[in-house]
Amino acid sequence: MKNCNLYCTNCNKKFLLVNGNSRCDICNEPLEVEMFTGKIKDNNPLRQTLLDRYQDFFPFSNNEVELSLGEGFTPLIENKKLAEEIGISNLWFKNETVNPTWSFKDRGTLTGVLYALSQNYTKIGTVSTGNMAVSVAAYGKLANLSTYIFVSDNLAEEKLNPIAIHGANLIKVVGDYGDLYYKSLEIEEKHDICFINSDSPFRVLGYKTLAFEICEQLDFKIPDYIIIPTGAGGNIRGIIKGFEEFYESGYISRIPKFISAQSKGVNPIDLAFKSNSKRILRFDNPNTIAGAISNPYPPSGNRVLNILKGNSGYTVASTNEEIILAQKKLAENGLFVQPASACSYSGLLHLIKEGIIDKNDTVACVLTGSGLKYTSIFENHDLQSKKINIDNLEDIF
Amino acid sequence: MKNCNLYCTNCNKKFLLVNGNSRCDICNEPLEVEMFTGKIKDNNPLRQTLLDRYQDFFPFSNNEVELSLGEGFTPLIENKKLAEEIGISNLWFKNETVNPTWSFKDRGTLTGVLYALSQNYTKIGTVSTGNMAVSVAAYGKLANLSTYIFVSDNLAEEKLNPIAIHGANLIKVVGDYGDLYYKSLEIEEKHDICFINSDSPFRVLGYKTLAFEICEQLDFKIPDYIIIPTGAGGNIRGIIKGFEEFYESGYISRIPKFISAQSKGVNPIDLAFKSNSKRILRFDNPNTIAGAISNPYPPSGNRVLNILKGNSGYTVASTNEEIILAQKKLAENGLFVQPASACSYSGLLHLIKEGIIDKNDTVACVLTGSGLKYTSIFENHDLQSKKINIDNLEDIF
Repeated sequence: MKNCNLYCTNCNKKFLLVNGNSRCDICNEPLEVEMFTGKIKDNNPLRQTLLDRYQDFFPFSNNEVELSLGEGFTPLIENKKLAEEIGISNLWFKNETVNPTWSFKDRGTLTGVLYALSQNYTKIGTVSTGNMAVSVAAYGKLANLSTYIFVSDNLAEEKLNPIAIHGANLIKVVGDYGDLYYKSLEIEEKHDICFINSDSPFRVLGYKTLAFEICEQLDFKIPDYIIIPTGAGGNIRGIIKGFEEFYESGYISRIPKFISAQSKGVNPIDLAFKSNSKRILRFDNPNTIAGAISNPYPPSGNRVLNILKGNSGYTVASTNEEIILAQKKLAENGLFVQPASACSYSGLLHLIKEGIIDKNDTVACVLTGSGLKYTSIFENHDLQSKKINIDNLEDIF
Repeated sequence: MKNCNLYCTNCNKKFLLVNGNSRCDICNEPLEVEMFTGKIKDNNPLRQTLLDRYQDFFPFSNNEVELSLGEGFTPLIENKKLAEEIGISNLWFKNETVNPTWSFKDRGTLTGVLYALSQNYTKIGTVSTGNMAVSVAAYGKLANLSTYIFVSDNLAEEKLNPIAIHGANLIKVVGDYGDLYYKSLEIEEKHDICFINSDSPFRVLGYKTLAFEICEQLDFKIPDYIIIPTGAGGNIRGIIKGFEEFYESGYISRIPKFISAQSKGVNPIDLAFKSNSKRILRFDNPNTIAGAISNPYPPSGNRVLNILKGNSGYTVASTNEEIILAQKKLAENGLFVQPASACSYSGLLHLIKEGIIDKNDTVACVLTGSGLKYTSIFENHDLQSKKINIDNLEDIF
C-alpha cells in the first residue's frame, strides 16, 4: 500500500495512516482519506477490476486485486418513458443491486478489507444488520481473515441466514444495539481487530468508484442531481469524493447537486438540514420499512449536512406508503429494489412536487440494494395472481 | 430487425423468420437462428449495452437497445486458492447472479422480447417456475407488452412474489405442469402471443453473449472446459453458438469442451449421454434441491447431447448432499449461488475424481443464479451463530 494520510472532515486536522483511527480525536467527526488525482487506465473494463481501472485514485498497489469479486461497473439505466411521465429532462438509475452481494456496500468492503490486509490485521469485523454484514462476511472469508459480524439478537432469520452462509463468525448481541458501534471502537484497539464500519475512511474510499462510473457512463456530462438513499451517510461521503477527484483531475467541469433521501420514519439528516442546523440529533423511536437506512444517529450525519450545504444540495424524506408505491413503480420498470433504495425515486417525486427539480433537470437515482434481500415487504404489496385449470387456459385471452 | 433465417438443429432444414416457429415441423427439434460473424464494436463497455458491443452478431438494429436493463458484462472471477486446493491449473467463475433479475435468463429475455417487438406482438408469455418467470415479467412490463407468466398452482410464495412484484399477469395453472409447455405452443398461434420459453431461438440467441464475454475477459485464451448447469438446455445451445461465431470470426482458435452439469435427482441428459443414446428419455419422479435445473424432459435435451458429442464434451450429475457442500464452499469464497448453480462446482469435483479433468486443465464454471432466490435451502445448511451479552463482548476474542 502506498503511503497516504487522512484528515478530519470537520477541523481538517491531519492524521497519519499508521494511527488507524476512523474519527478525529478533537471533533469526533469522521476522517477521510486524502484526495487523489490522476488518470483512468483506459483498457477494456471487461478485463479490469475497479482497482485496475482507477488505480491512480487508490493507495493500493496493483497486485492486491485478487480479492475482487467483480464489484462495481454496475449499469446506469436511462428511462425516458418515466422521465417524461414525471416531467423531467432525463432520468437514470444507477443499479447497485447487481454487485457481488447485491448492494453498493461491496465497493467499500473491498477497499476496507484491502486496508486491513495492508496493515497486517488478521481479524476484521463490522456492526450491521443488513447489506454491510453480508458484504463483510463474503469478502472477509474470501480474504482468509477471521471475520466477526455483530448483529442485534432479534434480527430476523431472513437477514441472518444470508450472512451466516458465508461462514464468518456471526455474533448476536443482547443489549442496546445503538451502543454496539461505540463498543466496537473500544474493542478495535484492544483486540487488534479492524472494524470496517459504515464510517470507516477506507470503506468510504471505495464508494467513490460509483461517481467515477457515472461520469464515464454519461461521457463526462454529469447530471444536475444525484439522489442517494442515506442511512449512516458513508455512501454520500464517498460519492462526492469521487466527483471532486474527477473534477480536480480535469474530467468534469462541475459537480452535481446531492440529494440525501431518507424515510420519514427515521430522518435525522433531513430534520437537521431543514432546521438549518449544523448537527444532527438522535432520532427517537425510529419506525420505517426502509431498514437499510434506519440509522437513528448516523455516524457521518454532520459530514453529510456539510456536503449538502457546500454544493446547494437538499434533503427529502418519504412515508412508508410512498416508499411502497415507488418500489412497485420501479419493479414495473424492471428494477426490483429494496425499500431503502426506492426512497431515491419517491424522494424525486417529492422534489418535483415542491418545484425544486423541474423539467429542465437531469437526475440520477442510486438504487442501493436488491429487493430480494427483504422479502417480508411483499406483505405490504397487494400482489395479484389468477388461478385457472389447464383445460380452460385459453379463457384468459 | 434485419432479415435472418433459422435452421433445425437436427435436420438442418431452413425456416424463414416470418414463420414464427421455435421447433422443426419434421423432427420436432428446436430451431436455431443462423450464424453471424463480425467484429466487436470496441468502445468503452461502460457506455455500451450488449447489443451495442456485439451488434454484428445480432439481427436487431441499434435503436432497439432502450429495453436494456444493463444485462450481461458479468464478472469472470479467478480463484487461484481454490484451483490449487482441488488440483487444477486455473479456475474461473462466470458470475451470472449479477444480472438485472439476478440470473443468466436476462440475456435471453432481452433478445426474446426484442424479437417479439420486431414482429409487432403485443402479448408475450412464458412457462417457468423460477428465474425465467421473473426475468420475462420484468422485461415484458418494461417493454409495455401484455405479459403472461404461467406457473404451477402449487408454487411456493417465495418464488411467486418476486414474479408478481413486476406487475405482469401471473397465472397459476391447475393441472399437469409438464403439459403446460406443449399447451403454450398451441396457444401461441391461436392467440397471437409470443412465448419466450426456454427453447425459443431468440432467447437462446441472447445466451451467446456469455461466451463472447468469456473470450474477451480471458483475452481470447479460452479455458479447456466450460461447466454449465443444465435444465432445459437453452443456455448450452447459446453458449456454444457464441464460441462458434467468435471462432468463425477469427477471434479464437479453438472451442472449449462443454460439460453439462445436472443433479442426480433429475439427470435425463446425463443418463442419455452415458448410455450413448442420441435421445433423452423423460425422467420419472424428479427429486432434487436444484429447482432451476429440474426439468424432467428438457426441450433442448437432444440438441445438448449432440453438442457434447461434437466437441468431446461430457456430462456429470451431483447428489443433493454434494450440491449443498458446493453451495457452502462457493459462499465461503464470496459467491452465494442457488443450488442449481452450485452443480457446476460439485460437478467439477466429480470430474477431477474421475480423472477427466486434471492438473493441466483450465476450467470456467458458470454460476447461473443468485442464492437469494431460494432461501428455503438454508434449512439444509447447519448455519452457526453465537449469542452474547453486550457487556461480555470481549469474551469472544
